[in-house]
Amino acid sequence: MADSTRGPFARALLQQCLHARLQVKPAEPGSEAEWVEIQRGLIIYVCFFKGASEEIIPKMVNTLVNVKLSETESGEYVSVLDLPGSILVIPQATLGGKLKGRRMQYHSNIEKEIGMELYSQFVTQCERELTANTKCAEAGVALKHGTYGNRQVLKVDTNGPFSHMIEF
Amino acid sequence: MADSTRGPFARALLQQCLHARLQVKPAEPGSEAEWVEIQRGLIIYVCFFKGASEEIIPKMVNTLVNVKLSETESGEYVSVLDLPGSILVIPQATLGGKLKGRRMQYHSNIEKEIGMELYSQFVTQCERELTANTKCAEAGVALKHGTYGNRQVLKVDTNGPFSHMIEF
Repeated sequence: MADSTRGPFARALLQQCLHARLQVKPAEPGSEAEWVEIQRGLIIYVCFFKGASEEIIPKMVNTLVNVKLSETESGEYVSVLDLPGSILVIPQATLGGKLKGRRMQYHSNIEKEIGMELYSQFVTQCERELTANTKCAEAGVALKHGTYGNRQVLKVDTNGPFSHMIEF
Repeated sequence: MADSTRGPFARALLQQCLHARLQVKPAEPGSEAEWVEIQRGLIIYVCFFKGASEEIIPKMVNTLVNVKLSETESGEYVSVLDLPGSILVIPQATLGGKLKGRRMQYHSNIEKEIGMELYSQFVTQCERELTANTKCAEAGVALKHGTYGNRQVLKVDTNGPFSHMIEF
C-alpha cells in the first residue's frame, strides 16, 4: 500500500469473473462494434495518479498477477497465474475521483497522454507474465484489454466479484 | 473523504448498470436459487471498518443517493434519485482488504455482527430515500440488496461501469 507522503500513484480494482465481454470499438456506420471477451479469471480496473511513472509498472503487474484471490474448484485461493485464469484490463480513470459536494473531481488523475502510455505498458507487461507462464500457456488463457479513453461497455458474469482495491 | 486520524469507517464502490441480477439465496435440494434484479441504476458495494457506528449511515446514504454519477440520455450527470434509477446494494467485505505479501488481510474490517446490523440500516435508509422521492415513486424504480455473508453471484450489464470509490 502507498504511504501518504508519496502517493498513491496508481489504484487497481480487482473483480473475479466467470465470463466478461468488453466493447473495444463502438459501432459506426458500416461497421459493427468490436468486443473482446475472457472466460474465468480476473478483471483489473486501473487508474494512474499524477506523479506516476513507468517505474511502478513492474511492481504493479507482479503484485496483481501473483496476489492470491482466485478461487480454485476446491475452494483454495491462488493467483490468477496459478488458477490459471484469463485477465481483462480496463482503463478506469474514474477510480481516481474525489468527492467534492455532490460531484466527483479528478484533480489527482494523471495527464491523459502519460496515462495512456503507462496503461499501454501495464497491458504489455501483464501479457508478458501470462505468456511466460507455462501453466497459462498450456491452458490457453488470454489477456484482453479495453481501449483508453473509450466508453467501457461491459457485461460481467461472476460467482462472486470478491472486489479488492490495491494502491501503489 | 475520511482523514487518516479517524477512519475511514466505511468504503463504498459505485458502478453504473443497465441491468444487474444478484443471487440472494443459493439453490438447495428441493428449492431453486432466488435472485433479485434491477434495470438501469446504481450498484453500491459496501464495506464497514472497525469503529464504524450507526451515526455514519445517514451521511453515507445521503451522499451516495445524491452524488451526480448517473448519466441521462442527453449525457448530463445527475444523481440516481434524479435519473431516476434503481439501486442494488451488495455487501462486499473484501473491499476492506489490505495487501500483505501475496495475500489480502482483513484486520480493519468490522466485526461480523455489527457489520450485519450497519448493512441492514444502510439498506433500510437507502430504501427510504427512494420511497420518499416523488420521481422515483412515479417511475417505479426499486431498491434491491444482497444478503450479508452470502456468495454474491452476480450478472452485470453496463454501458460503462464508471467505477467510483467513496470513503466515509
